[in-house]
Amino acid sequence: MADWVRLDAEDNVVTAIRPLAAGAAIEAGVETTGLVPRGHKIALLPIAKGAAVRKYAQVIGYASEDIPAGAHVHTHNLEFRNVDVEYEFGTDLRPVTLAAEPDTFMGYRRASGRVGTRNYIAVVTSVNCSATAAKRIAAHFTPEKLSQYPNVDGVVAFVHGTGCGMAGDGDGFEALNRVMWGYARHPNHAAVLMVGLGCEVNQIDWLLGLYGLEQGPLFQTMNIQDVAGLRRTIELGIEKIEKMLPLANDFTREPCPASELMVALQCGGSDAWSGITANPALGYACDLLAAQGATGVLAETPEIYGAEHLLTRRAASPEIGQKLIGLIRWWEDYTARNKGSMDNNPSPGNKKGGLTTILEKSLGAAAKGGTSPLNGVYKYGEPVTAKGFTFMDSPGYDPASVTGQIASGCNLVAFTTGRGSAFGAKPSPSIKIATNTEMYTRMVEDMDVNAGAILTEGRSVEEVGREIYDLLLRVASGEMSKSEAQGLGDNEFVPWLIGAVM
Amino acid sequence: MADWVRLDAEDNVVTAIRPLAAGAAIEAGVETTGLVPRGHKIALLPIAKGAAVRKYAQVIGYASEDIPAGAHVHTHNLEFRNVDVEYEFGTDLRPVTLAAEPDTFMGYRRASGRVGTRNYIAVVTSVNCSATAAKRIAAHFTPEKLSQYPNVDGVVAFVHGTGCGMAGDGDGFEALNRVMWGYARHPNHAAVLMVGLGCEVNQIDWLLGLYGLEQGPLFQTMNIQDVAGLRRTIELGIEKIEKMLPLANDFTREPCPASELMVALQCGGSDAWSGITANPALGYACDLLAAQGATGVLAETPEIYGAEHLLTRRAASPEIGQKLIGLIRWWEDYTARNKGSMDNNPSPGNKKGGLTTILEKSLGAAAKGGTSPLNGVYKYGEPVTAKGFTFMDSPGYDPASVTGQIASGCNLVAFTTGRGSAFGAKPSPSIKIATNTEMYTRMVEDMDVNAGAILTEGRSVEEVGREIYDLLLRVASGEMSKSEAQGLGDNEFVPWLIGAVM
Ligand SMILES: [Ca+2]
Ligand SMILES: [Ca+2]
Ligand SMILES: [Ca+2]
Ligand SMILES: [Ca+2]
Ligand SMILES: [Ca+2]
Repeated sequence: MADWVRLDAEDNVVTAIRPLAAGAAIEAGVETTGLVPRGHKIALLPIAKGAAVRKYAQVIGYASEDIPAGAHVHTHNLEFRNVDVEYEFGTDLRPVTLAAEPDTFMGYRRASGRVGTRNYIAVVTSVNCSATAAKRIAAHFTPEKLSQYPNVDGVVAFVHGTGCGMAGDGDGFEALNRVMWGYARHPNHAAVLMVGLGCEVNQIDWLLGLYGLEQGPLFQTMNIQDVAGLRRTIELGIEKIEKMLPLANDFTREPCPASELMVALQCGGSDAWSGITANPALGYACDLLAAQGATGVLAETPEIYGAEHLLTRRAASPEIGQKLIGLIRWWEDYTARNKGSMDNNPSPGNKKGGLTTILEKSLGAAAKGGTSPLNGVYKYGEPVTAKGFTFMDSPGYDPASVTGQIASGCNLVAFTTGRGSAFGAKPSPSIKIATNTEMYTRMVEDMDVNAGAILTEGRSVEEVGREIYDLLLRVASGEMSKSEAQGLGDNEFVPWLIGAVM
Repeated sequence: MADWVRLDAEDNVVTAIRPLAAGAAIEAGVETTGLVPRGHKIALLPIAKGAAVRKYAQVIGYASEDIPAGAHVHTHNLEFRNVDVEYEFGTDLRPVTLAAEPDTFMGYRRASGRVGTRNYIAVVTSVNCSATAAKRIAAHFTPEKLSQYPNVDGVVAFVHGTGCGMAGDGDGFEALNRVMWGYARHPNHAAVLMVGLGCEVNQIDWLLGLYGLEQGPLFQTMNIQDVAGLRRTIELGIEKIEKMLPLANDFTREPCPASELMVALQCGGSDAWSGITANPALGYACDLLAAQGATGVLAETPEIYGAEHLLTRRAASPEIGQKLIGLIRWWEDYTARNKGSMDNNPSPGNKKGGLTTILEKSLGAAAKGGTSPLNGVYKYGEPVTAKGFTFMDSPGYDPASVTGQIASGCNLVAFTTGRGSAFGAKPSPSIKIATNTEMYTRMVEDMDVNAGAILTEGRSVEEVGREIYDLLLRVASGEMSKSEAQGLGDNEFVPWLIGAVM
């Protein structure tokens, strides 16, 4: 089993996965020239002063002195040149070779042509003022009551803390509209009931007009003020869903091409190994998805900050690259006007763990997206229509980010974690990928994949990536993920709140 | 039954409660001089050009021409002088006469010396990542399981959408800390279990250190990452609460002075009658509370905007008045940097309904606070320690505002509504006061008091205010409010999110 890991065949550095003394063999003819701490980088070949240092196949900085093969590479000999960034578009495209044999999964095909991986009935709220009504309506449909509808996965209430006390236009209002609409039309929902209060800023009727939605047997709306009170609203909501249930139960799984998968790429509670194990493995899975014509949706804009000019080089068109730069500028303004900053530089703890530059840190997060071309950039919750690798704007905060990814159409979630997490979402099942074996073992009831095995069992990034991909296909077909089997996802709907609460 | 309502004995205008033709008798010797629409003002005596027009005993503007008794008073003859405001402090104090006979209620006296109106066990979350764990722990304690603890009102999970992806200092972080701490020490809680994930920004351990909290039989904390997973966290949480239950059940109600009441004053879904019926009636109840040495907590800073210089004249000290002005300045910055504004001017719809100036509109909201001196101004969720009429900073948005009022110590909520609302909160019961009889009748299952009777049954503001006060005492002693009987309050915990989500 190797003492180090190489993240891409083009890299000229590798990462030590345990502390190495001087003289440790790396590759034929290469030995460490001194102590290398765990998680730190080693030159795989001589790197001349001024030459690029590559990790993740990307430039993470430049040698500030001649670096011999086997030398420890860190802040003493690797510099980040903060030159004026020249944005380039499409200069680093790695074309995708489509798989010869398309994979399939068993999904629910909807009238829209989109495919669901689950078959829920959703109770979507416009405002916190209808949260209890929605929860009560959903709670009526116990497993016993649903037992005669075996194809229905459940009745879920999506409740949240916003929807009023906000501006009726602008970024925050538009983001909430997109989330509402994204859940209302999500392919994992067989039917939808929207419940409001009536006088909220986020008007259901306005939304219907905006998106041209019409009420029908599988889509209904109601307001507490119109229905005249909580009890009657709950009773009427239950009646409406009782009529939806037989129709929802008529949907059945059928073979669908893997190209119908749209996977939310997410990390939370990251550690020093996230960028070495779980994120690159998920990135490999994302490349396998891209080869199927499926979609991977990277997000968490603050965490890719500092590496955006490397992502623009992967942009399939200048417009796509420009849209990413526009998001970055928006975030600089958003954080500045909220008295924060976009500082994503490695902290002292990051540096101790082996991260030298902001590029390296940001690339570790972006590694979840693999290496294929960036085929689309989207606003928070905006419908993702491109195939392959895409990006959706969001905060890094897990529930807010995944809520946007699901609204944008993701029917699966792949979540890497180092510290551990009990995250789960509805209506799209989440698999969780541990970055290290210690945490995986400790929280095995919550973890689906152990990417720590790359360090402790000598498995390759590609092998673990293939395991993730295979599991995604099985979960898409109905196999329960760990979080799903535990019933998680009823409390994790958190639309991103942008702007003042009034 | 009168055709008009006078809101204070010092007023020189009254409000028509139905459309009046010319020649309608108002008071001895006063007749309307022309048509007066419903909700509009009538001069009760001659008002010379330049003289102050008073409603709510406050100056709402100045006569722009000589106004005869019986004339319609509106934009054509009433002007708002937007002069540079000279802030005055304590120039309009109406001393409170303490009641000769103190009233009492049956409350739970705590070791802190504070008094609860309910006896809950709380499961408080630091971050959304522990929401499902907390909900599952609380859900274990069904009415059947709690039946052997008759003095315990329930086990409640307080879950929310924030706690990470935020700055670890500044206004937003401090506000969340105050809410956490306010719920952890609330007198309506016999015992508290705090549940976190472990790696969140809003660290439970940091909070304990900040407030000098120590774990004990009635206060426990736990993190999912430490306990190693969701299932074990739920099991351990249930074990901890099972040990708390007999101790919580040992608390019993005992006679307590009404001075221990702290009432959140709130409005939501307001209409043209809010400032004429329900808000002044609640204001009268607030005066009765002040006469008992109890506390009323007005909030919703954006809704008193434009009348803050009238509130400072009621400030018991210059420091209290200055603190209110500081909040106003903060809000101007908060809304401006979020691309909004503090505009609280009457809309065209407001004007059609009879509201002439920003002062009149803001005073209609502030009327909930009655007429006694302003004895304290507090930040969002800051412990309110003054007695009598006080103010706490918050948005107008109901769940966010009430969450702050409860965190600040309120053990009751009085909520006025015109459009209708199904709001309820835990751990502090809410009574709801309808501004109009039509909505009261339609939503009677959710409304506790009909202040619309001031218009339709000729009841006085004082009579309805007394009814509210008496009901507050009964609810404080254990009588269930309408929303409480329906079990509301498990989904309305919404800490005010200030700042960027990262
Ligand atoms: Ca992350
Ligand atoms: Ca995240
Ligand atoms: Ca009881
Ligand atoms: Ca209000
Ligand atoms: Ca309100």
